[in-house]
Amino acid sequence: MPSTWGKIFKVSTYGESHGVSVGVVIEGVPAGKRFPFEEIQKDLTRRRPGQNDLTTPRDEEDRLIVESGVFQDKTTGSPILLKVNNKNTIGSDYDEMAHVFRPSHADYTYSEKYGHRAHVGGGRASVRETIGRVAAGGLARVILEEELGVQTIAWVDQIGTIPSNIDDTKYPISRDYVDTFPTRCPEAYANTQMESLIRKLRDEGDSVGGIVKAIVKNLPPGLGDPVYDKLDADLAKALLSISACKGFEVGSGFLGTEQTGSQHNDEFYIDRNTGQVKTRTNNSGGIQGGISNGMDLIVRAAFKPTSTIKKEQKTVNDQNEDTVLKAKGRHDPCVLPRAVPIVEAVINLVLVDAYFYQRALQPKWLLKYAKMDQVT
Amino acid sequence: MPSTWGKIFKVSTYGESHGVSVGVVIEGVPAGKRFPFEEIQKDLTRRRPGQNDLTTPRDEEDRLIVESGVFQDKTTGSPILLKVNNKNTIGSDYDEMAHVFRPSHADYTYSEKYGHRAHVGGGRASVRETIGRVAAGGLARVILEEELGVQTIAWVDQIGTIPSNIDDTKYPISRDYVDTFPTRCPEAYANTQMESLIRKLRDEGDSVGGIVKAIVKNLPPGLGDPVYDKLDADLAKALLSISACKGFEVGSGFLGTEQTGSQHNDEFYIDRNTGQVKTRTNNSGGIQGGISNGMDLIVRAAFKPTSTIKKEQKTVNDQNEDTVLKAKGRHDPCVLPRAVPIVEAVINLVLVDAYFYQRALQPKWLLKYAKMDQVT
Amino acid sequence: MPSTWGKIFKVSTYGESHGVSVGVVIEGVPAGKRFPFEEIQKDLTRRRPGQNDLTTPRDEEDRLIVESGVFQDKTTGSPILLKVNNKNTIGSDYDEMAHVFRPSHADYTYSEKYGHRAHVGGGRASVRETIGRVAAGGLARVILEEELGVQTIAWVDQIGTIPSNIDDTKYPISRDYVDTFPTRCPEAYANTQMESLIRKLRDEGDSVGGIVKAIVKNLPPGLGDPVYDKLDADLAKALLSISACKGFEVGSGFLGTEQTGSQHNDEFYIDRNTGQVKTRTNNSGGIQGGISNGMDLIVRAAFKPTSTIKKEQKTVNDQNEDTVLKAKGRHDPCVLPRAVPIVEAVINLVLVDAYFYQRALQPKWLLKYAKMDQVT
Amino acid sequence: MPSTWGKIFKVSTYGESHGVSVGVVIEGVPAGKRFPFEEIQKDLTRRRPGQNDLTTPRDEEDRLIVESGVFQDKTTGSPILLKVNNKNTIGSDYDEMAHVFRPSHADYTYSEKYGHRAHVGGGRASVRETIGRVAAGGLARVILEEELGVQTIAWVDQIGTIPSNIDDTKYPISRDYVDTFPTRCPEAYANTQMESLIRKLRDEGDSVGGIVKAIVKNLPPGLGDPVYDKLDADLAKALLSISACKGFEVGSGFLGTEQTGSQHNDEFYIDRNTGQVKTRTNNSGGIQGGISNGMDLIVRAAFKPTSTIKKEQKTVNDQNEDTVLKAKGRHDPCVLPRAVPIVEAVINLVLVDAYFYQRALQPKWLLKYAKMDQVT
Repeated sequence: MPSTWGKIFKVSTYGESHGVSVGVVIEGVPAGKRFPFEEIQKDLTRRRPGQNDLTTPRDEEDRLIVESGVFQDKTTGSPILLKVNNKNTIGSDYDEMAHVFRPSHADYTYSEKYGHRAHVGGGRASVRETIGRVAAGGLARVILEEELGVQTIAWVDQIGTIPSNIDDTKYPISRDYVDTFPTRCPEAYANTQMESLIRKLRDEGDSVGGIVKAIVKNLPPGLGDPVYDKLDADLAKALLSISACKGFEVGSGFLGTEQTGSQHNDEFYIDRNTGQVKTRTNNSGGIQGGISNGMDLIVRAAFKPTSTIKKEQKTVNDQNEDTVLKAKGRHDPCVLPRAVPIVEAVINLVLVDAYFYQRALQPKWLLKYAKMDQVT
Repeated sequence: MPSTWGKIFKVSTYGESHGVSVGVVIEGVPAGKRFPFEEIQKDLTRRRPGQNDLTTPRDEEDRLIVESGVFQDKTTGSPILLKVNNKNTIGSDYDEMAHVFRPSHADYTYSEKYGHRAHVGGGRASVRETIGRVAAGGLARVILEEELGVQTIAWVDQIGTIPSNIDDTKYPISRDYVDTFPTRCPEAYANTQMESLIRKLRDEGDSVGGIVKAIVKNLPPGLGDPVYDKLDADLAKALLSISACKGFEVGSGFLGTEQTGSQHNDEFYIDRNTGQVKTRTNNSGGIQGGISNGMDLIVRAAFKPTSTIKKEQKTVNDQNEDTVLKAKGRHDPCVLPRAVPIVEAVINLVLVDAYFYQRALQPKWLLKYAKMDQVT
Repeated sequence: MPSTWGKIFKVSTYGESHGVSVGVVIEGVPAGKRFPFEEIQKDLTRRRPGQNDLTTPRDEEDRLIVESGVFQDKTTGSPILLKVNNKNTIGSDYDEMAHVFRPSHADYTYSEKYGHRAHVGGGRASVRETIGRVAAGGLARVILEEELGVQTIAWVDQIGTIPSNIDDTKYPISRDYVDTFPTRCPEAYANTQMESLIRKLRDEGDSVGGIVKAIVKNLPPGLGDPVYDKLDADLAKALLSISACKGFEVGSGFLGTEQTGSQHNDEFYIDRNTGQVKTRTNNSGGIQGGISNGMDLIVRAAFKPTSTIKKEQKTVNDQNEDTVLKAKGRHDPCVLPRAVPIVEAVINLVLVDAYFYQRALQPKWLLKYAKMDQVT
Repeated sequence: MPSTWGKIFKVSTYGESHGVSVGVVIEGVPAGKRFPFEEIQKDLTRRRPGQNDLTTPRDEEDRLIVESGVFQDKTTGSPILLKVNNKNTIGSDYDEMAHVFRPSHADYTYSEKYGHRAHVGGGRASVRETIGRVAAGGLARVILEEELGVQTIAWVDQIGTIPSNIDDTKYPISRDYVDTFPTRCPEAYANTQMESLIRKLRDEGDSVGGIVKAIVKNLPPGLGDPVYDKLDADLAKALLSISACKGFEVGSGFLGTEQTGSQHNDEFYIDRNTGQVKTRTNNSGGIQGGISNGMDLIVRAAFKPTSTIKKEQKTVNDQNEDTVLKAKGRHDPCVLPRAVPIVEAVINLVLVDAYFYQRALQPKWLLKYAKMDQVT
């Protein structure tokens, strides 16, 4: 099961929902960086379930543990192991699912692929797998913030058919502001509607999907590596590797396909204040030819409704028999609020690797764009 | 510029629009396979421009050349170099673009990233780069067809606001049938409308975007490798690595986000004829938990309108000055018809690598799903 | 610090001598294999210090901990985290070395490379780093034994100027027999001389080097991947990546350079009993053209004397001043006995990866050479 | 057949002795570098056969062809394809070897691995495969020379039992000086003896082995990446991946195993002229803990005698029958002189990749050690 990712800032995640721990080994971390324990812990806390009544009641503390690579609060250059222990044990809730394939879940495909099932909590298909990526993404985030001034912010842009109607070019959104809304949709009216919808579906034993949008500010031009590691290609892979993600857009995305070139093209101009090259529109979403262009990077990720629901469903079992299933286990009626920090994490993992690759090959770019006093 | 892709069936592409040649080195090809020269040539011919009046008039023969790895029509197990020579030389059309950044093109970002511009024909950002992938994808296609019976078919599903209205579950589409339509939208009425739109925009010096849809039939369950090499994640990366692609969907994609779990879940049942596990709906698009489930794999890719247009546009030059540009060079008013074989190629590259990885780790899966007399 | 290794059976090790734990994440493990906990524990116990008075007195239990990837004693296909907790804390012995570069140790180079020193116990340069590899190597060993019947056996072939004089073609050596000798040189007279030499040098505060030889029996022909992953090239890298290793030989090695082709060539013949192709001599060491030929694989690795000694040495400190050093910390007068299981482990890691790669590309080879009832 | 190498400066070689061409695709080359066409051509010419009567008479011009990645004599950042066309066609000399396995050659192992034989000239096992590496190594060499001042020089240190007796610490050797000797052993008396020996064995239809030694001067401290990409580990792999190489040593190598730590340790001192840290002896061979220490890097590689000889040998054929073989084809009685530029090339490939990785993670190291006006 390939769980290694990145060319230079390389992460290897491990762990399943009901093993001893879940975590990540990170190699390719510069030596001599302050290790941002508190920032990473904060990211993990944002990700964990049980933060309010909209998410699964499974409440685990998710305390960050560092087992290597850090000495006296600084990175040593050695691989860093970050992990969180699992606390909950296997519940009897899962017994009935031991031999029944949950519709639209990974039960059947894991069974066909590996010739077995880790039915307990979905095993590696559990969203708990993302802990390693959120931890590593937290480290990536701080490196990007400190060395380049980059800010990555995600929020819930739609739940079911309820849009956020947020125009991110109009007013700045911060991660802290996003967190003041239980749905992580930072628009009061939409948030209220979304809350009602989620509660209603939860009570019905049903679930709902939605869209997360993310913006990356202050990203310098020049990151991303055509042709195979184009920034948008790597972001697409990163987002689709999150459970339940079914779609990806950068910039104008699917809607842009309906336009003509003269409508869609982003005209360049010289910003009189800064002397920098900018574009008047941003249909490109901050990426042209697979490389960041200095404008805000904008992506959207579609998440399907949670597949584990309490309503009765027709399905089959591992004896090749038709049957019905009415799930009892804990589940999230809507993964969107918790997907927000995961989306940010995988974006930051992509960006930091593109950054390190760029400075490997064109070090003078660094002198132009980085805060050199922060660089190792 | 990272141009290597794949874990086992690994491709390294090279070449730019106006160099000597463009091509690919493929390592990880089993020895003893028939080398499908004609099939690959056919795929290259489908990709090349100038096939009808809808595409760029640049007409190159794109003849396949094999420089290594094949002996007496069989693969030897050694790396295979496939290439096509470039014939056209640099035209004076490009002179005026030497110092002007074309809006929404990769000129500016290449300049910031690499500190230079290969202004002649877009260099590596040219769609001509895809020749290597189409050639390698042709070899991948034949391996998948012969050993697993897999069929990958793509078509134009939308141009501008004109949808194809094709229900692929109703009647089977073949690659040959798709090719009978100049737009590669295999629905007569939509094709006619699309043709008119493309001609109109071409005459105006403008361009238009659209959507390519692809289906993979007879894909056995078990391909794709969570958590980072999920089949849909790798497909997303593959498609977004094609120039002008701005969005990706698998199965229900963005529309599925509006549904509830009970609407969206694909119920399993036992097919009475075959005894196989199937799903009644296919919102999953043939992938669950990142692994193929034996149903048709369905993806869609959004392509923005071609950025090079002949209409006058405001922009800046490499002296940091505002200016205007009216492009003169050859250009495609709509890349969609030619994107079809490229989309198929990158899908087949993803699938063959997932297939080889699966048989590396679970060889007995092979005995269940492959035609063993075709396997080396 | 790149600590990921392998194409398919991929290991990522982490941990330093005085962190919380040292270990490894293994991806690319087939699902459904019995997890050989006891065998791996045995390999770890063979590696640990303090087994007799010839090695460093640091006595840690080195108990294997499994945190993921195993369920009900079987591999699940998910990444497997294996680790051992560190018990000893940082001793004051290391204080004096905090600012002094130990001659021939990695202190100075780590300082120049990373801009810092993890002076406590050598950090990642400590032999304790090998725990992750020995654990992963134990899993590799059992896969190779069960599926192919492969036996990897190493022993001490020389210490200082004392040779073992063992002719491994004459009588079979087993791992258990090797372990009956404190020096792991399985020849009684040589062992006695070596013991005396090590004790003498230990008492003088000095150290000594030597050579480990390894043989791999029952290795089928066809493993190893020219041109860059030739079996001998990968073995050379694996062995040189062990601390203190300064040389590698396969088959005739350096002595073979003095011969003519007619002396050195290994003539083929048909074994009348088995009908198999064999060679009368084995100067090739079981590898021809980078691929195993079915004969015993034979390699040798040279280890320099331990660099940490108690004798006074001239050196410099991190203030760029000349100084003297008389080390006080625990140290091994001779690493050779403990290098034996490490050498076996890295050989098995190379072999299992070559095996998985071979079956990815030429699965029918598997039907010829593997015990299919043991294969997943 | 894995033929991709390197983490950042990544090379993919292709081609066999009797295909259309042999060459390499290099990705990970900084944009904006002068492309050293003449220097690379010179390296290729040094490698080619037929330079004097000591080597195989096969005389091919080996003219460098560049098909991508270079524009107006500068690198563009895109993958660079370098190649040399093959001129000689398949001779009837090879017919008799079509079904007979040459002793100690790769015929039998290729046959068992791939299920076929490319008997014509050894296919990918031919030394002609090294052309791609020599070309890429030439580019690496110039980058290292221009940006760091590094000089890599190899020579023949022994042929058969004739040593060179060269003390490289006493007088400086240059590549040009080495080339004034037909054997590339830059010591007049030894060269004469070696010439005689090679001619004698050639006339007898026999062959002989030997040792190549290489020194890298002006290598800054800090290159090489423990634990798996230690500089000496990567060098060992690089050298062992050259055909006929059977052994590797760094610094004191196998002889160092006979010493005590107090004899072997390299004491540090401050060089009064430069203020730099140096060692009085160099048993470490310029590498400590897998990282360069600023002293001369010194390695040795053992090459077995050429396996293709004209003397009659017993062997078997592909019908599993005992037979005899008397080879007729062209062959080199001694590969050592031509191995010299190949050894340099693979060393430079290892070094440039370590250099790029180091500047990716510790860019400030660059400001200390590189000539910044030469860096992109």
